[in-house]
Amino acid sequence: MIGHPAFFCEPWRLRVSGVDMDLLAQTESVFALSNGNLGWRGNLDEGEPHGLPGSYLNGVYELRPLPYAEAGYGYPESGQTVINVTNGKLIRLLVDDEPFDIRYGELRSHEQSLDFRAGVLRRDVEWVSPAGCPVRISSTRLVSFTQRSIAAICYEVEPLNGSTRVVVQSELVANEQLPPPGGDPRVTAVLQAPLVERENWAKDTRAGLVHATRHSGLCVATVMDHLVGGPPGTKVRSESSPHLGRVTVTAPIEAGGRLRLVKFVAYGWSASRSLPAVRDQSDAALAGAVQSGWEGLAAEQRSYLDAFWGHADVQVDGDAEIQQAVRFSLFHVLQAGARAEGRAIPAKGLTGPGYDGHCFWDAESYVLPVLTNIAPGATANALRWRHSTLPMATERAAQLGFRGATFPWRTIRGEECSSYWPAGTAAFHVNADIADAVAHYVDMSGDEAFERTAGLELLAQTARLWRSLGRHDTRGRFHIDGVTGPDEYSAIGDDNVYTNLMAQRNLVAAADAAGRHPAAARELGIDREEMAAWRDTAAAMYIPYDDVLGVHPQAEGFTGHQVWDFAATAPERYPLLLHFPYFDLYRKQVVKQADLVLAMYLRGDAFTAEQKARNFAFYERLTVRDSSLSASAQSVIAAEVGHLQLAYDYLAEAALMDLEDLERNTRDGLHIAALAGSWIALLAGLAGMRTRNGILSFAPRLPAGLTRLAFTIVRRRQRLAVNVAVDTVDYTLLDGDPLPILHHGDPVTVPVGDPVTRPIPPAVATTPPPTQPPGRVPARRHPTPVGDASRL
Amino acid sequence: MIGHPAFFCEPWRLRVSGVDMDLLAQTESVFALSNGNLGWRGNLDEGEPHGLPGSYLNGVYELRPLPYAEAGYGYPESGQTVINVTNGKLIRLLVDDEPFDIRYGELRSHEQSLDFRAGVLRRDVEWVSPAGCPVRISSTRLVSFTQRSIAAICYEVEPLNGSTRVVVQSELVANEQLPPPGGDPRVTAVLQAPLVERENWAKDTRAGLVHATRHSGLCVATVMDHLVGGPPGTKVRSESSPHLGRVTVTAPIEAGGRLRLVKFVAYGWSASRSLPAVRDQSDAALAGAVQSGWEGLAAEQRSYLDAFWGHADVQVDGDAEIQQAVRFSLFHVLQAGARAEGRAIPAKGLTGPGYDGHCFWDAESYVLPVLTNIAPGATANALRWRHSTLPMATERAAQLGFRGATFPWRTIRGEECSSYWPAGTAAFHVNADIADAVAHYVDMSGDEAFERTAGLELLAQTARLWRSLGRHDTRGRFHIDGVTGPDEYSAIGDDNVYTNLMAQRNLVAAADAAGRHPAAARELGIDREEMAAWRDTAAAMYIPYDDVLGVHPQAEGFTGHQVWDFAATAPERYPLLLHFPYFDLYRKQVVKQADLVLAMYLRGDAFTAEQKARNFAFYERLTVRDSSLSASAQSVIAAEVGHLQLAYDYLAEAALMDLEDLERNTRDGLHIAALAGSWIALLAGLAGMRTRNGILSFAPRLPAGLTRLAFTIVRRRQRLAVNVAVDTVDYTLLDGDPLPILHHGDPVTVPVGDPVTRPIPPAVATTPPPTQPPGRVPARRHPTPVGDASRL
Repeated sequence: MIGHPAFFCEPWRLRVSGVDMDLLAQTESVFALSNGNLGWRGNLDEGEPHGLPGSYLNGVYELRPLPYAEAGYGYPESGQTVINVTNGKLIRLLVDDEPFDIRYGELRSHEQSLDFRAGVLRRDVEWVSPAGCPVRISSTRLVSFTQRSIAAICYEVEPLNGSTRVVVQSELVANEQLPPPGGDPRVTAVLQAPLVERENWAKDTRAGLVHATRHSGLCVATVMDHLVGGPPGTKVRSESSPHLGRVTVTAPIEAGGRLRLVKFVAYGWSASRSLPAVRDQSDAALAGAVQSGWEGLAAEQRSYLDAFWGHADVQVDGDAEIQQAVRFSLFHVLQAGARAEGRAIPAKGLTGPGYDGHCFWDAESYVLPVLTNIAPGATANALRWRHSTLPMATERAAQLGFRGATFPWRTIRGEECSSYWPAGTAAFHVNADIADAVAHYVDMSGDEAFERTAGLELLAQTARLWRSLGRHDTRGRFHIDGVTGPDEYSAIGDDNVYTNLMAQRNLVAAADAAGRHPAAARELGIDREEMAAWRDTAAAMYIPYDDVLGVHPQAEGFTGHQVWDFAATAPERYPLLLHFPYFDLYRKQVVKQADLVLAMYLRGDAFTAEQKARNFAFYERLTVRDSSLSASAQSVIAAEVGHLQLAYDYLAEAALMDLEDLERNTRDGLHIAALAGSWIALLAGLAGMRTRNGILSFAPRLPAGLTRLAFTIVRRRQRLAVNVAVDTVDYTLLDGDPLPILHHGDPVTVPVGDPVTRPIPPAVATTPPPTQPPGRVPARRHPTPVGDASRL
Repeated sequence: MIGHPAFFCEPWRLRVSGVDMDLLAQTESVFALSNGNLGWRGNLDEGEPHGLPGSYLNGVYELRPLPYAEAGYGYPESGQTVINVTNGKLIRLLVDDEPFDIRYGELRSHEQSLDFRAGVLRRDVEWVSPAGCPVRISSTRLVSFTQRSIAAICYEVEPLNGSTRVVVQSELVANEQLPPPGGDPRVTAVLQAPLVERENWAKDTRAGLVHATRHSGLCVATVMDHLVGGPPGTKVRSESSPHLGRVTVTAPIEAGGRLRLVKFVAYGWSASRSLPAVRDQSDAALAGAVQSGWEGLAAEQRSYLDAFWGHADVQVDGDAEIQQAVRFSLFHVLQAGARAEGRAIPAKGLTGPGYDGHCFWDAESYVLPVLTNIAPGATANALRWRHSTLPMATERAAQLGFRGATFPWRTIRGEECSSYWPAGTAAFHVNADIADAVAHYVDMSGDEAFERTAGLELLAQTARLWRSLGRHDTRGRFHIDGVTGPDEYSAIGDDNVYTNLMAQRNLVAAADAAGRHPAAARELGIDREEMAAWRDTAAAMYIPYDDVLGVHPQAEGFTGHQVWDFAATAPERYPLLLHFPYFDLYRKQVVKQADLVLAMYLRGDAFTAEQKARNFAFYERLTVRDSSLSASAQSVIAAEVGHLQLAYDYLAEAALMDLEDLERNTRDGLHIAALAGSWIALLAGLAGMRTRNGILSFAPRLPAGLTRLAFTIVRRRQRLAVNVAVDTVDYTLLDGDPLPILHHGDPVTVPVGDPVTRPIPPAVATTPPPTQPPGRVPARRHPTPVGDASRL
């Protein structure tokens, strides 16, 4: 666990002072800018030193063969790996005759800050060259939310000590050399030199490179233009070669003078359009950006984010660090999904190459529920991307011998890329997770057109999968055998409770949606018999229960397994998957991440309050949280069963996952789902919000130390502001018809414009404080007061 | 299923007429010669055409990286693959100016025959060259049982049409080009050009090549010498280059004359000795062979085999094909193990590159029980090889987190080479299988020195594994969770009955052996507490039973799984593993190969007669026999429960596995364990012999059509001849004290030299004839009378 000692605690930005070489890669991830289409890691302008250089385009990947020493039927033959595309961030600086490099000379000050409201990464440096020439450098960088192909940098150099000759080289560099990958299987297989030259050109202040990927056959164009403001005598020259575009600005700067360079970069890519088409599209986007100018782009960015924060902000009083962390989280969740439009939302967004740039089930289960409230259009787009991959998913289902669709465990374009089937392909719950995101989005948004044109088919094809994947026993109960649930320390078990409950919802949701859209249902071949079969199957779904222990086994037989020897497991042997064989993990009671506990959140209706309390206590003892997805779900149920401090501890773990690098792999990119989980822990946890039963319900309770939690939730265009204090909560409906809600189980109708205040009943935990495995107790959260500006 | 239309049915040899190009590779496997140390496939002397050229040295392999698209803890990083070593079989022939190649010219006759008593492969050819020159060629080839580094060929050419110039090139060729491997994962990953040149030389009639393997660091020497008998004017010339040694004989042959060439080849290799040492060792072996001469070698071979057949022969009257097949089987089992001495017995012997040349559990479970009777020294050597790999097995156990030893699922040298752990590493039963082979060998041979110096440690280290691999439940029952049994269509299940029963025997055998050798036990750190713990654990072993169905589930929960949809599975979709995902196979009731049924054979004491009958009927419906190991075990239990015709059918399937290429992969090598299984099906099946309970017992019954089954069994040096007729059986003790046995459960004491005759009670099956999955019914066996000479 690496804390970052230099992040300042401020409500609307993340600021760091100085450069810690050991934390460089982590900082680059944290300071990554993205709009969901285009992502730049927070690499230094001058390129070096770096932890891991990274520029990514959503959907731009290379194919690589998936090797098997022993092959098997249905194993995917080819994987997809995100590639580092042409670096457009590079601006090198020569001060007199010495290159600006923070490792040499004297670094008087160095500050970077990510501004959540301006949507920019600022950098301010004072540096003295080895020859003794002091210079002030500032850069501001943005990846535009409003012009999705565009990134821009405003770069200024000011010599502090009289007349200086400054040379600035603004570059596009393809096939950057990358550091070799480590041995951690969670890290991407870095592909070296994936770009093949197609075209390059340079003219005046412009340059461009067009490349193709070797195997995946994508055409990628990167173009740049510049506005130069310098003293008289400033000269501009441009040049290009296959993997380099360069605009060089030479300026003799007198005392008090400075050089200002605005760099506009446009990216374009396509799998199907021609090279000229892709090049022209990038040039056009570039022209638009130059027309907007730096000030125009920055103003659009600010305006976009003002609107976003207007409804998305979550206010937390009493813990300034959590306040900052939740805004950091929401900003990065927005960056991951805002303009993904027709592409997946990868587990790491576009902040790093981790997990090969793949999208997993947590996009639907963690990220989309948040986006559905804060940026609903992004959810619709993400689900339309899933819909666009249905042909691949139905083909995969047929290959595996099933009807309907089987969505991939991990993918970029839609094909299954998981080479280890017990943990990957067998995790069929991804299909129910997609269905749940569809149903939740339609319920919250009322987007009937989406349901009719995409949602219904997603629901129906996944429902068909469950029907053919499971089977009825002699007593008429429906079983789903041999699947892997969310917990990756178990595999191919029978009747995983999470999977069965989510499949049950999937089946009912499909039947409901078909009933709402009879014409569309007919087109999909859904008849009354099939709808009835879905409902019958849902009703017959078997949910195992251990009568002796009085808990739900995570899957059939789970509670009969041997308990992992936690006492004998030294702290440095976590995460367990790197130190123990799957064989031993699978056969024992040890839980990587919330599984049954996640089911209790998403299918809370299927459990009694007593069951929830007992189950939670039972699984707390077994859960090691080797996955970043776990803490938020544990936080939600901890809050529900009355363990508020524990809920708070887990909230902090989710919210600080990347700021404190708790999984020790933030260098490879942010944990977008964990960050989304901090929103879930606050709203579903502390505010007790549930949205999946056709009515909004709340059961707010704050842990000691927090004094206020406020947010706005939108359902069917009705905006409800919720303001939780220590003893009371105000519900304020901002528009629309009176809204019925539940407050701690009691019906309340909230009229528009007239806040309803309700008292908060005290928490009564029916079970003692749960215990966790030795060494896996979450850090006890102590609120950070406002004004405690540094995390030192 | 490819029948070979041209094998003649003869009692003591296997003969084929003509050359069927489509069956060439299969024929090469069937005609392979080996002594367990050195193996030559039955390739034509002139090298081409070939199915698959192959020369193998037991223990000579190359390392290759085992690739994983997603790595995991404890995955083996490096595999071992048998390589095709220097080909010493090659004798090319030029008749006038045309090369002898059966694809051109006119092939008047072509016959090959493998002589089980002479231990040679003969070939007789009459061929007319394209230019019209007729010639008779005969070759006789042997791989010596008495001189384990030596192979030899007696090659004769006789022009039939007047004066002819004949050129014979006798060669050593390294790094032969091999046909590309197919897509079947059971086939080896062929390694191209694995040999690196070290030395080569030629002088007079001799030539030699020394190579090293690139990664495994082995030094391999191949040397040859020749005796040439030709007409006046015959000239000999020799030459060598890095990958070629050649002796060229030129002979002008007049009408009635002929050329005779005897080729001696010696192989030597070492991982630790120097190049000169290996070269000298080969030269010395070669000198010895030349000294013996062809006639000497052939006489030694005949004498060795006379002794072998004297006690090993099994006589079957009434079915000439089965009689031939069982001798073919015994000959190849002998070839696989006779002189392996300190090396593994691979699944395919040294007859082909299938399964990468690896040794699996079936060496101990199928091959060694047969060798224990027919060549007990070979069993001792094979188990001493296992013992020599204990350091690797204890290291592997430690890596996986266990005590004791974990022997590899597949290996050449001793390291685990299985890259798919659910089917490989999790099949821990291999450890109990080794222990059973130890206990059985010691019991049958009385070899106390072996038990003290090797057997006890094997038993103890495997017993230690079981203690740490399993666990006691709250009721004190011992469970072994998450393992894979013999049936590879199930994986990582709890309490596999086969595994638990064999582990139980392992634990008791370890305690017993430690009691017999207290000093050796002390040296291994075995104290009274540990011995008691082994016995207690064995006594507490949990064996699941399904009370509702009245059968043993193969593993806990198995009988509750969905039954495979056999009716919907077309015949061409077998073997299932090539057409369905593991996921679906694992979660359903479908059995690749005898598992519970094998347990009923090897641990018959753990089942009642009623349970055996019910279990057998139950598993017959589920067993698809996609493994060549299955039929023999099914034959044994079919006979025991009274279904004699079915036992006969399965016997034939095991015995004809390679002669009829039933698994369609005989091209890659013979199924040595299936061939051993034909002996098991005859002796344990039809004769009902059981040897594992401290007393020899028999329950013979012949199926309709067979009129006699006779064999000799040796226990503690007492030889008992058993002669089963239709209604009676004679037991004749050839030496030693009176021997108590059981005959159909009744105690009988057999005095030396005085045959005891007992009536055979009629078979009474308590269950109706079992059914198999559609399309998987074994071929109904109809006896082949003597004199039905061809299988046409």
